[in-house]
Formats: sequence, structure tokens, C-alpha cells
Amino acid sequence: MTTASNLTPGDIRPVLWDASTRAISLIDQTLLPTQEKTIMCDTVDSLVTAIQALSVRGAPALGVTGAYGVVLAMEQAGREDWSEQQLQDAVDAIRNARPTAVNLAWGVDQVRPSMADGVDKVLEHAHGIAAEDEAANRELSRHGADWLLAEIGDRPLRILTHCNTGSLATSTWGTAVGIIRELHSRGRVEMVFADETRPLLQGSRLTAWELKQEGIPYQVQADGAAASTILRGLVDCAVIGADRIAANGDTANKVGSVGVALACAEVGIPFVVAGPSSTVDLSHPNGDDIEIELRSPREVTELAGVALAPEWDKGFNPAFDITPAKMVSAVVTEMGVAEPARGETVQKLVPHVA
Amino acid sequence: MTTASNLTPGDIRPVLWDASTRAISLIDQTLLPTQEKTIMCDTVDSLVTAIQALSVRGAPALGVTGAYGVVLAMEQAGREDWSEQQLQDAVDAIRNARPTAVNLAWGVDQVRPSMADGVDKVLEHAHGIAAEDEAANRELSRHGADWLLAEIGDRPLRILTHCNTGSLATSTWGTAVGIIRELHSRGRVEMVFADETRPLLQGSRLTAWELKQEGIPYQVQADGAAASTILRGLVDCAVIGADRIAANGDTANKVGSVGVALACAEVGIPFVVAGPSSTVDLSHPNGDDIEIELRSPREVTELAGVALAPEWDKGFNPAFDITPAKMVSAVVTEMGVAEPARGETVQKLVPHVA
Repeated sequence: MTTASNLTPGDIRPVLWDASTRAISLIDQTLLPTQEKTIMCDTVDSLVTAIQALSVRGAPALGVTGAYGVVLAMEQAGREDWSEQQLQDAVDAIRNARPTAVNLAWGVDQVRPSMADGVDKVLEHAHGIAAEDEAANRELSRHGADWLLAEIGDRPLRILTHCNTGSLATSTWGTAVGIIRELHSRGRVEMVFADETRPLLQGSRLTAWELKQEGIPYQVQADGAAASTILRGLVDCAVIGADRIAANGDTANKVGSVGVALACAEVGIPFVVAGPSSTVDLSHPNGDDIEIELRSPREVTELAGVALAPEWDKGFNPAFDITPAKMVSAVVTEMGVAEPARGETVQKLVPHVA
Repeated sequence: MTTASNLTPGDIRPVLWDASTRAISLIDQTLLPTQEKTIMCDTVDSLVTAIQALSVRGAPALGVTGAYGVVLAMEQAGREDWSEQQLQDAVDAIRNARPTAVNLAWGVDQVRPSMADGVDKVLEHAHGIAAEDEAANRELSRHGADWLLAEIGDRPLRILTHCNTGSLATSTWGTAVGIIRELHSRGRVEMVFADETRPLLQGSRLTAWELKQEGIPYQVQADGAAASTILRGLVDCAVIGADRIAANGDTANKVGSVGVALACAEVGIPFVVAGPSSTVDLSHPNGDDIEIELRSPREVTELAGVALAPEWDKGFNPAFDITPAKMVSAVVTEMGVAEPARGETVQKLVPHVA
């Protein structure tokens, strides 16, 4: 039996079940881009610690982590002869490791009903969740690439992206970065401008690292440079991910996204939002009621323990922003493409509930 | 005789001539906000080193530094019995310490003709340049505050600013921050949102430090947050400085400015550009021909020696951007206010050349 590697270029997997050691292998994303290391989590405690330290992050990646986490808890329960209550508490500990990460709870809840059928069944279920995520990413990437080349022209594109939406944020492959990957496989990427994405620098630390692994040409820029890069005609389109997409196409995503959208609208180039259909939330008719999470001021006023500002508590740190539907040229899921800026809603992008 | 302090709250002066030691006293801006120290430059070499290390920066501050630099060179020439050629070479060394900083050369060239009249005359001239800069800043700040309160309403304002345009960038008082200071003195500041201004963080390091000194309420935010802060209705106006203003009002300023302007235009709040009349360059009919300086990629990919990205040379680092006149609600100099977004040119904002 071969042990899969998390770090194989072209097949980067932030979360893997390691069958030989019966443990979860995570790429430690807190160490990137300077160190490429994996963490083996063979206890629930070590997994919860890794989740809380942001060694693994990104909504789909956390969903997969939650599912494999239940397998890990069952393995440990067997080894250490836990009571049923101890096992359920351990599963809850994983589920609640990051209260605002809904996908983590979602991943746990998906496989929890299989627990009665034994650990092999849960593992099979967890593998299925990872495989489905990858399949959705690859499918939406084809849709997104097709749409962009039809809209802009069939030639190598100069693409701006924000935050990290690649393999590291998902089971593998990615969403917005997945579209870039798909375009690259067709020889249709001239240059990627990756916004560094302050405060946590997911763009310069993670997206740049992934693009380097893939041999995709890229440059990192300060977030403040994005608008002028677009206005100067240096990019053909912007492609970003989404944390939540309302029914009309209003999109919640990493703070800085709407600034990119404003510049794209000003010059009339496509602004594309990519995510699996699970990102579409039809319970919100529009973005007005989507809560904007305020994170610690320290993320803005300090970096790696160094003070960037005179007072640590004077940072204003909204994690997300809302891009209005009128600026969203296209929303892409594995189901297809909708065009909110042209008045289309995103209903058709989610599986039909009978 | 009292020695003036550079660091007195309410009267922060980045460049001072210290009469007792016959030296130039600089606030070391590279150490802010964590250390408040001054550097005494009593030789031309030490001054050139301080300029190159960016211990002093900001166009008007460098102009004053150039002028006092000539005094310093003459003092050293007298002490060390230099030849006329040695003295002129030393003055040239100051003039060329930062080739792209036109104000440094401008300051040297202003006082150079006075050298034949002796060091006291040059010192008097240099003091005059500093005093004129301060007077212009205070006057433009009154104009800007008057215009904003007339436009928005006479109430405490929530103001967004970008980069550092305060005392530290000028002789003292500041331009865009000068307007904020003036509004504060009238009890008309509710909150300042200071963009951190990557890559060099002049906002979080310097503007925040100045606002703290003055007791003006502020929060620092990532540059990517600026657009959403504006779209969410959290600010009443944005006020920024300028590196160069073309005849039609197109404005070159620190990268990130035009993203702020786009958001202000979207919601219809004032976007105000402030600078002394020397910033207006009527030789440019518009911003099309203003060259955008590309700085080192390392400023984006590294911070304080720490790698933020996997490859140090893959940073795209334009220092400035151009905000189109149609998004510039007002340009303010010591001569008054013009409204480019309403079709007005800025001719009236510079002294009339007979």
C-alpha cells in the first residue's frame, strides 16, 4: 500500500486520511510559504488544536476535515475503550472547534448518521465527501473556463484573484483557482495577479505558493494595487471565491472583493464568483442580512508578533464584504453559470429540491 | 536658548534645525510607531544616510530637509576647511540622495543661490521654506474643512484617509491629515478610518501614531476593507494627499487611492485631494502621461525580513495610482478649492504667473 502525499504538485491535498497510520494528515498552512510540512493528527485533541491554529482552513477543506474527524474519533474510541458518551463528546469537540466555520459542523453532521454502521462505513462516507468536493470543483472550473473564453475571447488571459480558493481551501483543485488551473491546462493563462489579501495574507502565502507549484505565471500585489491594475488595462477578468451567495447573486467573500468588483465594473471586464452549489444560500433573497464577521483587531495591527500600529486594539477588521449582484458578471457552480449583472438569479445553480 | 523638540504633541516636526548643536534633527520614521527617537545629523554623510534609509520621507518634508542640508554642508565645510569644490560636491550628494524625490532637489535648489551670502542667509532662507510650507498646510486645511462642512453638513464627520499626509510628511501640520486636524480643532471629527497602506504601512505606522498623539479617534483597517467601509455607509468622506495633480484634476497619489475614489463615487460621498499648490502640475493636461514608479518587489513579498510569499521577486509593486478627475470631488490647496468632478480645472489653485 502506498501512502499518499499531501504535497504532490498538481495534486495538493490539505486533508488526507492516512490508511497506514489511521490518522489525518494535514498540510500545516500556518507555515507556508516558507516551510512545507504535514501534521499527523492521530488523536481528537491534536486535530482540534490543528483546526484552531488554522493549520487547515477554507470552507470545503474544513468540511472534509470534519468528516474524517469522526473517523479519527471512532478509531481513538476503539483503541482507548471510550464509552459512547466519550465518543459523542469527542465528535462534538471537533464539530465546535471553530464556531463560525459552518462547513466543519456540516462535515461532521454528514457522516454522523453512519456511525452506527461502523468505522469503515464512516470512512467510506468521508471519502465520498472529499471526492464529491473535488468533482464539483473540477466541473465548475470547466464551466467557468468555458464562460470566460466565450466572453473574452479564446486567448491566454490575464486574471486577477483575491484570497486563496485553491487546493488548500478545498479537498483539492479549488474553485476560483480551479478555474485558473483549468484555463492553464488549456494554455489560456498569460498572468495571474494575486492580491496579497491582508490581514492574513492568504494570497501571498497560499495562492502564490500553489501557483508556483503548478508553474502558473503569477505576481503578488498589495490589495491597494488591485483597482489600478484593473483600471490600467493590465487584466482581462477577476475570478474570486465566495463564502455565501444570496439568491439574487449578492456575494459575501473575503474583505477586499468588492473593491475588485468596483474596478471591474468601471472598465467593463468580467467579475466572476466561483463556488460549489453548497455556497448558494437561497434563504437569503439578497446580501442585506448577511452578517459581516468582525475579527480581532490584532490581525490588522500586528504581524507575526510585530506591532504595525501604535495601539493593538485600534484595528477595524471586518472579515468579509458584500459585492452587489449588479457587479457580479457570473456566478459559477458545478451546475453551470448564471449572470446576475444581467438580471439573472442563481436558482438554477443549485440541485433541484423535489 | 531652548532646544525645540521634534516630538511635541500638536507640534510634531520631522525635520528641525538645532541651533545649539548646529545639526539637523530628524524623527526616525523607520522606528515608528514602536520607538520615538530622533537622529542628530551633524555631517553631510549622516544626513544622506538618513534620507536613503527613509528616516525622513514625504515630499514637503524632503524639501525642507534639502534646504537645511545646504546649511549643514556649509557648517561642515567651515569646520573642516573644505574647498569650494568639496562643498558643492557635498550639496550635490544631498540633492541626489533619492533620485526620484523631486522635492529634495527642489529644496536644495531653492537655497543654493543664497550660499554666496553666507550660512546665516541660507539658514534664514531654509527657515522660510519650512514656515511657508506650514502656512500653506494650515491655510489649505481651513479651506478643506470649510468645504467639507458646507458640502456634508456642520457635524462631526467620519473620515477615511490613505497613506500618511500629516506632520511627518511635511514641515509640520500636514495636508489631508491637516484637514482632519483642523476639523478636530472645530470639534468636527467623529472617527478617522486610516488605511494601513501596504506595502510600506505609512497609514498604520505613521498616520495612526500622529492621530494618537493628537487624541483624534481613529481605527486602522486593511486597504481591502476601505471599499466596503465606504459602501456600508460608515464614512462621510475620504481625504487624501497627492504626489502630482494634473490640470484637469487627475491625481497621482499612493497606490490604493483610486480604489477609495471608486467606492466614494459609487455611494456619492466626497473624495477630496489636498496638497500645497506646488503639487499642481499644469504641464500635464491630464494624468495619462504621469509615469507610475515601480518599486522593489521585496516591499510586497517581505516584511521586516520575513518572507510573505514563496518567491521574493514575484511582487508587482506600483507606488502610485491615478484617480480620474471625474471621481475627484474637490482639490484643495492654500489658494482654495476646485471641483474637478463638476468639470472645473485646477488652474485657480496655483499662484498666478505674470
